[in-house]
Amino acid sequence: MSANLPCPFPHQHLTGIYGLMPHEIAFLLDEAEQWIALNRTTTKHDSRLAGLTLINAFFENSTRTLLSFEIAGKRLGADVVNMQVSQSSVKKGETLIDTAVTLNAMRADMIVVRHQSSGAVQLLADKVDCPVLNAGDGRHEHPTQALLDALTIRRRKGYIAGLTVAICGDILHSRVARSNILALTALGAEVRVVAPPTLMPTAIERMGAKPFHDFDAGLDGADVVMMLRLQNERMEGAYLPSPREFHALYGLTPERLERAAPDALVMHPGPMNRGVEIVSSVADHPTRSAITEQVEMGVAVRMACLDVLTRRRRGVEGWA
Amino acid sequence: MSANLPCPFPHQHLTGIYGLMPHEIAFLLDEAEQWIALNRTTTKHDSRLAGLTLINAFFENSTRTLLSFEIAGKRLGADVVNMQVSQSSVKKGETLIDTAVTLNAMRADMIVVRHQSSGAVQLLADKVDCPVLNAGDGRHEHPTQALLDALTIRRRKGYIAGLTVAICGDILHSRVARSNILALTALGAEVRVVAPPTLMPTAIERMGAKPFHDFDAGLDGADVVMMLRLQNERMEGAYLPSPREFHALYGLTPERLERAAPDALVMHPGPMNRGVEIVSSVADHPTRSAITEQVEMGVAVRMACLDVLTRRRRGVEGWA
Amino acid sequence: MSANLPCPFPHQHLTGIYGLMPHEIAFLLDEAEQWIALNRTTTKHDSRLAGLTLINAFFENSTRTLLSFEIAGKRLGADVVNMQVSQSSVKKGETLIDTAVTLNAMRADMIVVRHQSSGAVQLLADKVDCPVLNAGDGRHEHPTQALLDALTIRRRKGYIAGLTVAICGDILHSRVARSNILALTALGAEVRVVAPPTLMPTAIERMGAKPFHDFDAGLDGADVVMMLRLQNERMEGAYLPSPREFHALYGLTPERLERAAPDALVMHPGPMNRGVEIVSSVADHPTRSAITEQVEMGVAVRMACLDVLTRRRRGVEGWA
Repeated sequence: MSANLPCPFPHQHLTGIYGLMPHEIAFLLDEAEQWIALNRTTTKHDSRLAGLTLINAFFENSTRTLLSFEIAGKRLGADVVNMQVSQSSVKKGETLIDTAVTLNAMRADMIVVRHQSSGAVQLLADKVDCPVLNAGDGRHEHPTQALLDALTIRRRKGYIAGLTVAICGDILHSRVARSNILALTALGAEVRVVAPPTLMPTAIERMGAKPFHDFDAGLDGADVVMMLRLQNERMEGAYLPSPREFHALYGLTPERLERAAPDALVMHPGPMNRGVEIVSSVADHPTRSAITEQVEMGVAVRMACLDVLTRRRRGVEGWA
Repeated sequence: MSANLPCPFPHQHLTGIYGLMPHEIAFLLDEAEQWIALNRTTTKHDSRLAGLTLINAFFENSTRTLLSFEIAGKRLGADVVNMQVSQSSVKKGETLIDTAVTLNAMRADMIVVRHQSSGAVQLLADKVDCPVLNAGDGRHEHPTQALLDALTIRRRKGYIAGLTVAICGDILHSRVARSNILALTALGAEVRVVAPPTLMPTAIERMGAKPFHDFDAGLDGADVVMMLRLQNERMEGAYLPSPREFHALYGLTPERLERAAPDALVMHPGPMNRGVEIVSSVADHPTRSAITEQVEMGVAVRMACLDVLTRRRRGVEGWA
Repeated sequence: MSANLPCPFPHQHLTGIYGLMPHEIAFLLDEAEQWIALNRTTTKHDSRLAGLTLINAFFENSTRTLLSFEIAGKRLGADVVNMQVSQSSVKKGETLIDTAVTLNAMRADMIVVRHQSSGAVQLLADKVDCPVLNAGDGRHEHPTQALLDALTIRRRKGYIAGLTVAICGDILHSRVARSNILALTALGAEVRVVAPPTLMPTAIERMGAKPFHDFDAGLDGADVVMMLRLQNERMEGAYLPSPREFHALYGLTPERLERAAPDALVMHPGPMNRGVEIVSSVADHPTRSAITEQVEMGVAVRMACLDVLTRRRRGVEGWA
């Protein structure tokens, strides 16, 4: 890249999709393609992050996302350390900012943060010198999930602009929904959100998404149906539908899927509650379901983000 | 190896000893010898698994076995990630099959699984493309434990065929006993099992082992005495002997050991309940006890299994 | 180094500061300097521990210390495995000695141990062939903390001999205080300890420290003020001051700090209870506080200890 071209991703952190330009999102997706290819070979290793320290600071339990980031970091050759803090210093009363300052003083080169509070990742990012990646914070954002979803759609459909994507379920508590709405509308998709009134944010239209309370209407002709997990663990205080009740109204069945476009993609960020928000015959559909592919895209997208965000630090030309 | 010789270990997975031919078991033991030697040097590292991703998926707590597999994988150069799931996605309601599909989509090259349910490892193995190693599933099998035990006996005694091995304790709940009976009878040993009636499986003779309720009679002239851990944590519903009562009837003491052959080996898979199933003077006997050696053999055997099971994947000649 | 010079650090283990000669302590600090420099570069990696297995055996929860040792080991190229045993084999009733023998049989090259019981690390060290590093045992010692504190002081002040260091807080339960008293007096500092009568050990003067119950008197003219964490979790049976009460009598405020020397350094081992033993304006003071630097020194000191203690094993000349 010539030095007088603008840097294709001029951000220090990845705290959310909010604030990213469409071409920046597309750049990350483009970058991920090489890692999909590498991961499909046997010796799936690159050493560009050799000598760099990646700290996965997970304040909220997560098996899949932690695993995905840990694998991504190790495949790029980084020294990866996990810090699962639900039961440690935090219990001892340390503030998040003190944790940030501590990780920084240990000379971390990248910090991946998952936290139960919205905005916690930005707070931490403000206190450190190295890139910070948001692996999910409260109800706020989960940008790598949105990137992997966009990449899955782009690879399956060939493009994103002009597609109708229906995101269905508990929109109110979902950082996945929020990041996906931002990413997919930025890339030119028409996004519908389908939720019961109690699980629908009030300002959804300002985000560029079209709200539906009726599932069938929301699915009508959709090119992509993205189901969310019913997250009972985040619903304190909210009206709580029973799994059976939720399934009756908002569970994706083969019959319901008939309302969508004939070749509609089915997606789910996992882990699934089979029989609640989605039934197995849909989740495991050999051609319609992209759920397994989403997991694969996740590792590739995270490798791309770790690589891109450390380029300035590594002195890659054009990233000064 | 010439291409027209049969592959010495033509299995994709290692879910149990059941189904292995005696020469296949012996092959794994032979392969482990080189790793014993390497591990005794200072720079105990080989890079044959470099670039491969090993996931240790432990659904049941285990310190020793996890540590042993983690060290084995790292010493062979693999990217090792641990997934301890007793309190995570599984809590969120994800099925074992969904976990399998997820690990597969992340392009794992080997998956080591420990699970509290018998058969869970096979269920997972059926859903992934890469080799799966059973690190213990319910009351079913724990094949690497049986291999390390066989290797320990072979190295100490010089051979296995014709030896009398007494396995003593809670046979009913023990996957260690089951895998050992299968491996040792396949290798030509005469296996006796000693247990109280409530902790003895009904079909034990069909497995080729000779049952004893009387400890002294079971020990009579035995070349190897293998004590099992009293596993109170797996005894729901069964008659539960008190530790004191168990010790009186089935604890290995120096006096009891007199009944065995003069040079009888003493073994225990660990962790030991000292003073319950075994007393310290026996466990720590300088020449009779092989308990520490078992731990050492464990790392070597696991390195051998990881190496052998990934040969096809790595394109090693003769393993196509 | 010529072979007829004495080895600068002739100890197999680092179980405490007790027993170290002043020049041996200084040697470890000198060695740490190179790692501070390396850690400030981008490719912060050295391969001198490649092929060696480092086991972090933490029987007591710790986020920071574990992270610091894990990063130290990985930056030196070791195969690092963590064994967090608060809820595992120990629960199953395994003795500490059996754990030691197990780790030894797995051919560990270094074992870092943290344990809630004083003396547990020495007990373990007596049973293994490889170097053991104490990462904190009960109320006994935490030698790498004392080394990093000494290094921080030496770098900030230029020297240690002749400085007045006030260590303030719960001295009775603090292994950090104990190791620091030993290290700083060995290096020629005058050490004062400030604590309420119920949190002051009786034999403190025999350790070479001067006791103060009055915080202001203890601070008077001090060059370094080292605050300790109020460790409610270790105070079973002791008189327990409330955080508010403790703060009123022994909390470090800007006003109190006025009593110390004009350029007095403020230190804290972390994690801090802000508003209890220290207020934020002091903890975050841009020139007086060395708290963040302590964390950075921690990684460097641990790298130095891991390197030095394994030299004999690695056959480094002069370390036979």
